[in-house]
Amino acid sequence: MKLHILGCYAATPRTFTNPTAQVLEIKNHLFLIDCGEGTQVQLRKHKIKFSRIQHIFISHLHGDHFFGLPGLISTFRLLGRKTALHIYGPKGIKEAVTLLLKLGDSWTNYPLIFHELTTKLPELVFEDEKVTVNTIPLDHRVYTNGFLFREKPADRKLNIEVVKKYNIDTCYYQNIKSGKDIVLDNGVLVPNHKLTLDPPKPKSYAFCSDTAYMPDMVPQIKEVDVLYHESTFLESEQHMAPKTKHATAKEAASIAKAANVGVLILGHYSTRYASIELFKEEAMEVFERVELADDGKSFDFH
Amino acid sequence: MKLHILGCYAATPRTFTNPTAQVLEIKNHLFLIDCGEGTQVQLRKHKIKFSRIQHIFISHLHGDHFFGLPGLISTFRLLGRKTALHIYGPKGIKEAVTLLLKLGDSWTNYPLIFHELTTKLPELVFEDEKVTVNTIPLDHRVYTNGFLFREKPADRKLNIEVVKKYNIDTCYYQNIKSGKDIVLDNGVLVPNHKLTLDPPKPKSYAFCSDTAYMPDMVPQIKEVDVLYHESTFLESEQHMAPKTKHATAKEAASIAKAANVGVLILGHYSTRYASIELFKEEAMEVFERVELADDGKSFDFH
Repeated sequence: MKLHILGCYAATPRTFTNPTAQVLEIKNHLFLIDCGEGTQVQLRKHKIKFSRIQHIFISHLHGDHFFGLPGLISTFRLLGRKTALHIYGPKGIKEAVTLLLKLGDSWTNYPLIFHELTTKLPELVFEDEKVTVNTIPLDHRVYTNGFLFREKPADRKLNIEVVKKYNIDTCYYQNIKSGKDIVLDNGVLVPNHKLTLDPPKPKSYAFCSDTAYMPDMVPQIKEVDVLYHESTFLESEQHMAPKTKHATAKEAASIAKAANVGVLILGHYSTRYASIELFKEEAMEVFERVELADDGKSFDFH
Repeated sequence: MKLHILGCYAATPRTFTNPTAQVLEIKNHLFLIDCGEGTQVQLRKHKIKFSRIQHIFISHLHGDHFFGLPGLISTFRLLGRKTALHIYGPKGIKEAVTLLLKLGDSWTNYPLIFHELTTKLPELVFEDEKVTVNTIPLDHRVYTNGFLFREKPADRKLNIEVVKKYNIDTCYYQNIKSGKDIVLDNGVLVPNHKLTLDPPKPKSYAFCSDTAYMPDMVPQIKEVDVLYHESTFLESEQHMAPKTKHATAKEAASIAKAANVGVLILGHYSTRYASIELFKEEAMEVFERVELADDGKSFDFH
């Protein structure tokens, strides 16, 4: 699992900072999460192959999280895309994108499939053999969802030495990997745990932006490997957080601590601050395992 | 008169090239012409003061000419803008911008005034004491207008030495500058041309993008000082121009020659070409006074 931060600053794009967009590599998917203005240029800069993006998740319809989407959709068309593009986001996103394409008489040549979200409860929005994606309802000024990405448990790993010692035919290997015991030709039962090793623990990633401090999310994100939680403000601006429905670095850390996550990544910094180091310092007063997102930074989770 | 090229490449924004946007400085106005994705970042890079932009002219509703507009409008709000913003563009632009602001519950705190264009004949869309702006109907795949910016003739200049010689009271100066003759106290008439000098010739700028080769525009842009004409293609791709309703460098030069303009600026280059120098070479086979637009380049016209 790998996370590419394309943009992680609040509000307006500037010369050297970009609004929210990130790409999660998980089980051969490249999931694009949010798409602020300039995202397509950031994708190019970071050499992320456009054609591998099949699913785009939009948290909410503030411009700094989705004004790059119409341009990206148009660019896919100009690049000759044929494969379907799935877009998950708040109700209204289809009307907005459709109107812009209509006005430019620029309909896509590929299927554009909208999955509009309205529920205020966690909802499974994507599932295949290896991954699930659920919404995480958040508390912001407009209807907003975070997203919880979870790898499914992988098959057990063959302990190949033991399997060979018992001279088991390869046609049983898939059964063994699925957890079944084996009865040998001589009638002896070999329990599965003797034939297999534990698979790698499935990874999980929770994206939570934008949101006010919201302890209600804790049960849903309990013990995820990685939590990206917005931290628009430092303690000095704490008074602004409830009104704007944003969180401070310390509040993000409180959530991380309560959920006992593997690591907390901070982002969505207000552009009022000259340096982002203080975000880490303040969060670490509450929770130790803190990383700072920054534009162009990648995180590897193995 | 000064022209700042913020972006002048066709189709998709890339790491080092930007879609169409330019700022015309004329008689104390900063007119923004087109607003592709990333325009607000380009404005910042080139240190153009956001608050001085009061009028935005959008040629047509293809993404590479207006997908930066919703973000710029939102940024004006975040920067605390209070003064009105006028937007001139094809019918539909109001619905599009309004829908995006509504979905984000991000209404502006300043007046946003749309001037929607529908006519296929040249139309006066802006006028004050010093400048007029007319549409130039163009021939593109969707409804498109260029824009013709003209300074009005300035007052005549006082020939102050002569005026003082005749001992004329300052209260008559404005009359003289307006072109009136003066009768001296002794009854002698002094004709205006003895008291004044010619003012500087009013400047004019025609923005023509996107468009197919369209000789019909020539009478309207006859002898403008500066013509920006799109040149998406080189001769080698001439066959693609009529179908896509774009022009070649040579076609742009033919228009410039027929209209006998002061200087032709080429732009809107297809991103298929590694270098833009050939555009100038090909155009100069037809017309001598050719300049190449490029992102970040400024042209001074004194």
